This record gives sequence, C-alpha cells and structure tokens, in this order.
Amino acid sequence: MAKVKDDKKKKAKSKDKAAKKDKGTKPAGKAPLKVSPLAPASFPDMPVIDGVRFAAGEAGVRYLNRTDVMLAEIAAGAAIAGVFTRSATRSAAVLDGQAKLAALPGKSKKGFAIVVNSGNANTFTGARGASDVALISEAAAAALKIPAAHVFTSSTGVIGEPLPADKITTILPVLADGLDAGKAAVAARAIMTTDTFPKGAVATLEIEGKPVKIAGFAKGSGMIAPDMATMLGYIFTDAAVTPGALQAMLQAATNRSFNAVTVDSDTSTSDTVLLAATGKAGNTPIASGRSAEGRAFAKALGAVMRDLALQIVRDGEGATKLVEVQVTGAKSARDADRVARAIANSPLVKTAIAGQDPNWGRIVMAVGKSGAAADRDLLTIRFGDLVVAEKGWRSESYSEAECAAYMKGQELLIGVDLGLGRGTATVWTCDLTHAYIDINADYRS
Amino acid sequence: MAKVKDDKKKKAKSKDKAAKKDKGTKPAGKAPLKVSPLAPASFPDMPVIDGVRFAAGEAGVRYLNRTDVMLAEIAAGAAIAGVFTRSATRSAAVLDGQAKLAALPGKSKKGFAIVVNSGNANTFTGARGASDVALISEAAAAALKIPAAHVFTSSTGVIGEPLPADKITTILPVLADGLDAGKAAVAARAIMTTDTFPKGAVATLEIEGKPVKIAGFAKGSGMIAPDMATMLGYIFTDAAVTPGALQAMLQAATNRSFNAVTVDSDTSTSDTVLLAATGKAGNTPIASGRSAEGRAFAKALGAVMRDLALQIVRDGEGATKLVEVQVTGAKSARDADRVARAIANSPLVKTAIAGQDPNWGRIVMAVGKSGAAADRDLLTIRFGDLVVAEKGWRSESYSEAECAAYMKGQELLIGVDLGLGRGTATVWTCDLTHAYIDINADYRS
Repeated sequence: MAKVKDDKKKKAKSKDKAAKKDKGTKPAGKAPLKVSPLAPASFPDMPVIDGVRFAAGEAGVRYLNRTDVMLAEIAAGAAIAGVFTRSATRSAAVLDGQAKLAALPGKSKKGFAIVVNSGNANTFTGARGASDVALISEAAAAALKIPAAHVFTSSTGVIGEPLPADKITTILPVLADGLDAGKAAVAARAIMTTDTFPKGAVATLEIEGKPVKIAGFAKGSGMIAPDMATMLGYIFTDAAVTPGALQAMLQAATNRSFNAVTVDSDTSTSDTVLLAATGKAGNTPIASGRSAEGRAFAKALGAVMRDLALQIVRDGEGATKLVEVQVTGAKSARDADRVARAIANSPLVKTAIAGQDPNWGRIVMAVGKSGAAADRDLLTIRFGDLVVAEKGWRSESYSEAECAAYMKGQELLIGVDLGLGRGTATVWTCDLTHAYIDINADYRS
Repeated sequence: MAKVKDDKKKKAKSKDKAAKKDKGTKPAGKAPLKVSPLAPASFPDMPVIDGVRFAAGEAGVRYLNRTDVMLAEIAAGAAIAGVFTRSATRSAAVLDGQAKLAALPGKSKKGFAIVVNSGNANTFTGARGASDVALISEAAAAALKIPAAHVFTSSTGVIGEPLPADKITTILPVLADGLDAGKAAVAARAIMTTDTFPKGAVATLEIEGKPVKIAGFAKGSGMIAPDMATMLGYIFTDAAVTPGALQAMLQAATNRSFNAVTVDSDTSTSDTVLLAATGKAGNTPIASGRSAEGRAFAKALGAVMRDLALQIVRDGEGATKLVEVQVTGAKSARDADRVARAIANSPLVKTAIAGQDPNWGRIVMAVGKSGAAADRDLLTIRFGDLVVAEKGWRSESYSEAECAAYMKGQELLIGVDLGLGRGTATVWTCDLTHAYIDINADYRS
C-alpha cells in the first residue's frame, strides 16, 4: 500500500526571505514587483530525486543580475511525459518539444535534458525561432553527451523578439559542469518572469514498501488560462513508471490542476509541463494508473500538480485574493466547467472581489452568459457557507454585513449549485486589481 | 430612390455641457464619473418622430437628484420589433417583453408604450420581479389607455435587489401628462447608469420621395458583451414597415452593431433593443429588407445602430481608447469573429493598449487561443497602416518608434489577416484601465 505525505506543509518553516528580496523578477530598469500577499509561507525543501541534477546561471537574455537559464539532467533509463499548450500560435520550443516527444519511445537509455530560459518566449520568431531551438538543443546535447533529440527546451518571456541563443549556448557547458542534485530551488528561481515567488511542491509515498519522491516546480503569473498545461512546470520522480502510464497520468492530473486555474483568461503560447520518472526508487514499473500502485502514484502526482497550479494563481498578476469557484448540480461536467470559467474570468466578478464587495448579482450574470443550461429558480449561490441566493431570489437568511465580512478574507469560496444534474467543476482564480494593469500596461516598454 | 444622411455629423454644434455637469450618473453618495474622453462632440439634435412622445422624471429608484424613469408613447398603427439578451438569467422585464412580443401581431391599432427605469435591474428577484413588471405595465396602460400587453418595460442597474415598483407606478400618471414629441434627449438621459454621456443617433432618408426619419438612443458602459442586443436601445422611425420586415431588419443590424461591441466580455441580463415604426411618413409599407426601399431603410437603420453601439464603447467603463479590430482572411466568418473577440476581450491586449504599448505579441497570443484555424506563417498583423508582423516574423519594416507614436492616438485599428480564406469580422472595444477597476470594485457598496 502507498501513503501520500505533503512534505511541503510538514517542512515549511519560515517566509522565504530570498524571495522577498528578489529583484531578478523585473525586466531591466524596472522597480521590483512586491511579493504576492498570497505567497505560501515558504518554498518547500526540495528532496534529491535520484537521477536528476540541476544548474542555473545568468545568461543576460533580457534580465540583469539574476539567473535566467536552467538546465536539468535526467539520468539514462528514465521515462518522460509532456503536455503542451493547444494555442494555434505556439512557440518554437513547444513545436520542437511536441515533435521530439512524439518521436521518442518515451524512455531513453541515454537520458534527457531540459533547458529553460526566461525573458524571451522565442514565439512568432519564424524560421529563426526553430533554428535557435536547434542550436540550444545541440549545445546541451554536446555538454551532456546525449542526443539533441533528447533535449527539451522552453522559453518564456516577451513574444516576437529574436532570442539571443548564443548567450544560452555559451553558458550551457558551464551549467553542465555545475550540475547538482540539490539545486532544484535554484532552477525554480531561474525560470521566473513576472512571478513574485518561486513555486515548488513535493510529495512522498511508498510503493511496494519503497519510498518514492515526487518534486516539481513551475512558473506563471500572467497570461494564465492554460489549455492543456500551464506556463511552465517540471516534475521529477524516482518512481519507475512506464512511458504510456506516465503520459496518461500526467494528462489526467493536468485537467484537474493546471487546466483548472485562470488568472486572466489569456492562454500562453508557451505552456509546457514535463514529467520525468527516473525509476531509481526500484519499484516494479507502474504500467497503469488503475492499479493500486498507479492510483497511489497518480494521487500524489495530482497533489503536487494542484499545489503548483494554485501557487500560480496565488502569484496571479496583482492578486490579493485566492478564489475557488465550485460548481455543482450542472446538467453535465462540461456545463459545470463553462459556468465555473464564466465566473472565474468575469472582469466584473473579479473587480467586485478586489473591492471586497459581495456582489452576487454579477455571479448571476456570469451564470447567465456562460452558455450552460441554467434555471433561475433552481440556482443557489454561496460565499463560503453563507447562502446568498436561492429559489430565484435573495436568500431569506442573507445578511449584507456577514457577507461583507466574509469577503475581507484572503481565500474565498464561491459555490454555485445549478440544481439540474450531477455535473461538477472546480476552477481557481484571483481578483482583478490595479496592480494587474500596472504590470501589464507597460510590461514591454 | 433613397438617400441616407447622418444628421448627427451635420448638426453637431458644441460639446454637450449638460453631460459634463451631470451628477445624476452616480449612485447616491458617490463622486460623479468624469465624462469619457472618447465622448462625441455633442448629443445629436433629435428630430420629432411623428407618432412618438417622451417624458422622464425623478422617481428615486436608487439615484438622487436625477431622472431615472422614462416613458415613451407610440401611436396606434405602429409596428414594433425587439431583440433581447440570450442570457440564461435574464431579467423579469426581458422575459415579459419577449412573451409580449411573441404574443403580439407586431402591429397595434392601440399603440404601444415603453417604460424604462435606471438604478435597479429587477433581475434575480423571483416571482416578485414578475409581479413588479405587471404592476408597472398596468400603471402605464391605465395612464395611456392601452392594453397592458402593449407596454414594454426595461430595468437597468443593480442585480438582485427588489425593485421599488411603487415609486415608478406613482410617477407614471405624471409622466403621461407631460408627454412631448420633443423630449427624446430627456428620455435618453433618464436611462443612464454608469454612462458618462447620453447616447443618441439620427438618420434621415427619402422613400418614394417622402422624407423618413430614424432616431434612437441607448445606454451602456459596463457589462457590455451583448449577445443579441446591448444593454438598452430604443429606436423610432416614422417609416411604414411591416412587422415581419421590421423584426428581420432589426435582427440583421443588431449583429453588425450592438452584437459587435465588447467592453468587458460580460453579457448583461437586461439587454434589450426595441424598434418602433409609426408609419406616419406615409410611404407604402416596406415589406422586405430586400426591396430597394427596404435596403435603403436597412442601411440607414444600420448606421443609427452602429453609431449607438460605438457610443457605448466610447463610454466603456474607464475607456481612453476606441479600438476597431478588423479580421480578414479567416477560414470562415465564425472563425473571424472568434479571433476578433479573442483580441477584443483579452485583458493583456487591453492593458497594453491602455499603456500605449504596441505589444503585438499579445495579439499573436489572442489569435492562438481563439480556437480558430490559424497558421503562424500566413498571419499578418497591422496597427493602422503599419504592418508589424508577417510571414511568421516581425515585419522587416517594423519600427518601434512609429508604432509607439501610432498607439498614442485615441482611435486605433488592429488589423489581422489570417491568410486562409474569405471570412471577415469587425468588433469594437476599448482599453482596460485603472478607472474600470475603480468603477467596478465598489459599484454596489
């Protein structure tokens, strides 16, 4: 049997002071962004995953005085799985990663590498974008003595600017020399753009009596309405999992984690999540998410991915509130998802939350515009445990004072029951504040 | 033959000073909103439409010291047409109006009335909402000696609060006594909520040598992503038009006017546009939009409705820029519409415009997330006449300085050609600024 532990909660000790001081999240010449008030207490202690090593360095792609390239090396024998944005204008690195993943048997006797740069998305950069990805892949392959087809790259940052690939290829041999199994936290920091804190999550479980670890990190705080995966996420485990089972479990968990969060309804061109399983834990390879071991692993993987996804919402650009939208009683799961997203993406709902206004009328509006089947007289709306509307009318127990007090909280629940069927959905979002506009009205200039 | 003249442009004289001083647009106790910098130079001279009279008064529904109820009386023999929101949580007045319109032959020997209140949307107010509509309809019917089934009502303002219908029924006999064919401008002002200026538009044409007039007014500035019609619009003509042709022409023009604007992607529960044709111009009744007369009338009607729709965007909450998104070369009209709306509703595009940043990478992102067929290497993006991106790459002629200068304009054009087919769409929107958040973070409190 397998047990899931959330190491993060257990090991959290103190506010990550380094995150608070980090000036590296700003484009050169700008004032640093304040750490989100919703940031977790600390970055988790990232355990060593046997078979994975990290390094990060300062290449100066766009930012000054901060790390902006990370290299991860995954030992021979590992399986790898990936999910990518479904954007029609996806980046050169995403197109390359999808092609490489499709061509691989999924498990390599030669090992893999992941190279990520921040500051430039290498998106809408034509044929040069693709050749820059090839240059970076070849440089990493040469440094690690693996095939270039086993190197996955991601680029995140401004769209439409040529990537200074030479800055990255120059630093890769130095990073290869400095690879270290204990440097996951350093790697997590190098992939940040407008993030105000690095995002990591950890779980441990036992399979066949053997301890198994899962550790991952992610970035993202704007252009967040992932469609298949979020901005960037990298998850590592020492479990032995077959490539097919790994890919299936990654896809299923993505839908309930990265695909269930939205900051601003804008879907990135670079969304990528990669999951590598080194097999060093020594368990019999998990061949299906439906076996007892597979279910236990999928549950722990899901917890790590949901944790990372929620950290992205907690770092939503300008966010001051973390909001869970729970929809029940819809005619179908699809309808529930539509309603949840209509609420979570509504600028009027999000500004009301920013203003701590229990403006449930805007939730009625969002339900109405969602396109899902809805009946006014069967609809129930809750803020936390407070029923605000039911039976087509403001609830008899409605108290403006109670609701206003509830809205002052930092973590809010909006519950909507449609009273029509068994479809449910949960989506997480944040509020829409002045800081979102400050960050985005002059990001590029 | 028929000629279309745009009276508004011809007769515009001076800034409407009354609008600038209007404190009535504010909920009680709030500072007045500044008039939008995109407001037209003046409210047009509204011509008398033979067979239509207006009145407005102060009922104190929610606002103090301003008119908040308007009454329009339409003479016996008129035809009437209407389009309404498709929201699943539409208001009591919309449900009532849809039922009445469906039950009418469309043309009445008894005439019609329209009653509109601002300050309260009478939405999500259960059975009481419907009975309040009935009370108001009956009061207007009694005052004007017409059947209650011929009275159309609209309510706009806060959602979920009971409507103080008695305040409206009390004032209706007074308004009936004060009806005046010259009071359209007064009526236009009474229906405003967060609008910073009243919105009117006029066209004249000749049919069979007879002068025909079309005059309309509208309100709306937030919760604007109309789906069938916008917030509220009322259009009057003295043309003779059969009910079927009137409804068909209204629906067609709605798709290219009110349904083609978006302020914040949020669809109102109260959207209603009514069009009344009194027939007093004496022309042979227009029985089809396809005849020469029908085409001329439809063109003039379309011009009035587009003018009103654009005024709503010009008064978009917090707007400082009016943006036309023109999509061409899509695989289908539906795909073109998807791309145009994805751009027009993207918070990242809208904040970049607010910041006067020619951030075309975000347009690439919005095209990618729209769900429409797109090929990076065939995509062309323009700001006005400046080609910024083509052939999967930043344009060779791209000049950051030129684009930045263009973005400082108050009226902007974003052109996207997908290079795939013949589908086109045009959508109008505005930028997303701090003022939108100021207005909406505490609208209700």
